[in-house]
Amino acid sequence: MIIVGGPASNGIDDGIAKSLSLPLVKVQSKIFPDGESYVRIPETVKDNEVVVVQSTFPEQDKRLMELFFISETLRDMGATKVHAVVPYLAYSRQDRRFMEGEAISVKTVLRMISQAGADTLLTVEPHHEEEMKYFSGQVKTVSPYEEIAIEIRKHVSEPYVLAPDRSALGRAERIAKIVEGNFSFIEKMRDKETGKTTIKEAPNVNLKGKDVILIDDVISTGGTMVQAAEYAYERGANSVIASACHVLLVGDAKSKMKRAGIKKIFGTNTVKNDEEVITVDISKTIALSL
Amino acid sequence: MIIVGGPASNGIDDGIAKSLSLPLVKVQSKIFPDGESYVRIPETVKDNEVVVVQSTFPEQDKRLMELFFISETLRDMGATKVHAVVPYLAYSRQDRRFMEGEAISVKTVLRMISQAGADTLLTVEPHHEEEMKYFSGQVKTVSPYEEIAIEIRKHVSEPYVLAPDRSALGRAERIAKIVEGNFSFIEKMRDKETGKTTIKEAPNVNLKGKDVILIDDVISTGGTMVQAAEYAYERGANSVIASACHVLLVGDAKSKMKRAGIKKIFGTNTVKNDEEVITVDISKTIALSL
Repeated sequence: MIIVGGPASNGIDDGIAKSLSLPLVKVQSKIFPDGESYVRIPETVKDNEVVVVQSTFPEQDKRLMELFFISETLRDMGATKVHAVVPYLAYSRQDRRFMEGEAISVKTVLRMISQAGADTLLTVEPHHEEEMKYFSGQVKTVSPYEEIAIEIRKHVSEPYVLAPDRSALGRAERIAKIVEGNFSFIEKMRDKETGKTTIKEAPNVNLKGKDVILIDDVISTGGTMVQAAEYAYERGANSVIASACHVLLVGDAKSKMKRAGIKKIFGTNTVKNDEEVITVDISKTIALSL
Repeated sequence: MIIVGGPASNGIDDGIAKSLSLPLVKVQSKIFPDGESYVRIPETVKDNEVVVVQSTFPEQDKRLMELFFISETLRDMGATKVHAVVPYLAYSRQDRRFMEGEAISVKTVLRMISQAGADTLLTVEPHHEEEMKYFSGQVKTVSPYEEIAIEIRKHVSEPYVLAPDRSALGRAERIAKIVEGNFSFIEKMRDKETGKTTIKEAPNVNLKGKDVILIDDVISTGGTMVQAAEYAYERGANSVIASACHVLLVGDAKSKMKRAGIKKIFGTNTVKNDEEVITVDISKTIALSL
């Protein structure tokens, strides 16, 4: 088995190769002046199984096309099997049709990854586990919350884990077990007439003097985290930190979160992180799941 | 039959619909803050054949992914056939392996267009006609040089058509017939030791007092055009204009070309043109080829 690291493997290729003592081939890549990507696999893979590592953080479309080019080229070169490791799966949140005629974009993405030549797929914390059915081969998903929690534990003394919406409650519970704190969730309610959102309190939440740990799957524009942080401070929290598997920090997310009193941000290397994000390496967990 | 115009249809969707008196549905699209594309087909296409128009000029990868999303959604919605019109086919110049392990990117692109749901494909002036074999369905290609020549004819009085390399000679001949001038080609020679390129003159080229018309399939960084323009002026040309099917004008191409004395640039609407490019609409030619 050979590990092949794509241009957006973000060090996870090195981590996997090291963990499993497997040879690593780095894909050569460049972008032509007109914006087209070029990739080349500089060593033979003939008659070998290959694990190709390529995340699809922004620019998502470029990362995806590179993955397609690499997969097909590995096939052309005689790889017997191609296992795609896509730590951050772009378009994961576009997984259903809210209005007639909308694209289920993640379905197309997963079908294309398979059509380009990948036999199996491993990803970290997709938005909904069910969406992975659109990939035609075997799928594995990896959860990063244990590693995140072990890191967070070093930074808090009075932990309380808060899910910023109900769907993140399971994640909060997993974190809470390791940091040895309580956990709960809050819920956003949207007023149908004014469009204004307010937070609906969950029962038995006492944040007074607590170091509140917010946890979600993705931090994108930071809006959800900001609202939850403001809520926590209003309820007497001592400090607030934000954590997620995939920390995108789109636009002015970082400064917005700082202004809301969020002291630290924790994430993983599924995406290329801002230097201030405390980054947990999940390549070993991925390696053990392969 | 219904025409569906993608976010990069560049007016060609309107032109086709008008030429053929067919209904036109405009794809709704937006880009989320994190950079992901969203598309929606706002009207029913069930039990209809559909022509989806989406060019893939920069940003190529975004344009391609949008095309995949649209094609699959049209399938989901019950379109009986999907005909893809991709006026500018990205990655067309990456059509062979010069070194072992290189991606034949256009092969992947064409396979993916087909896998996403397109039964047939029409494109304008691909880099090499042979590469179209990678598309699994029926392929049509359209040549724009007659329309370009008819426009150029209005702008020159002593026409001489010059292909800036040997591969463009056929194009030069087609233009020359319509503008009623002579034609020839020049060739770039690369010194293997110094790496410097010089121009090798073709026989019987007399550019003295001529309005030289340069013609190629693509103008990208403009380097080829600049070199050919300098050559033409050294040989006594009165004026030089540049023309191509796909005028990308990457980076400072436009100012470089101006400095080299290129008076006008002609192109088609297969790509989104700079406002100074004299743009020929080829939607009617496409419509007649469908």
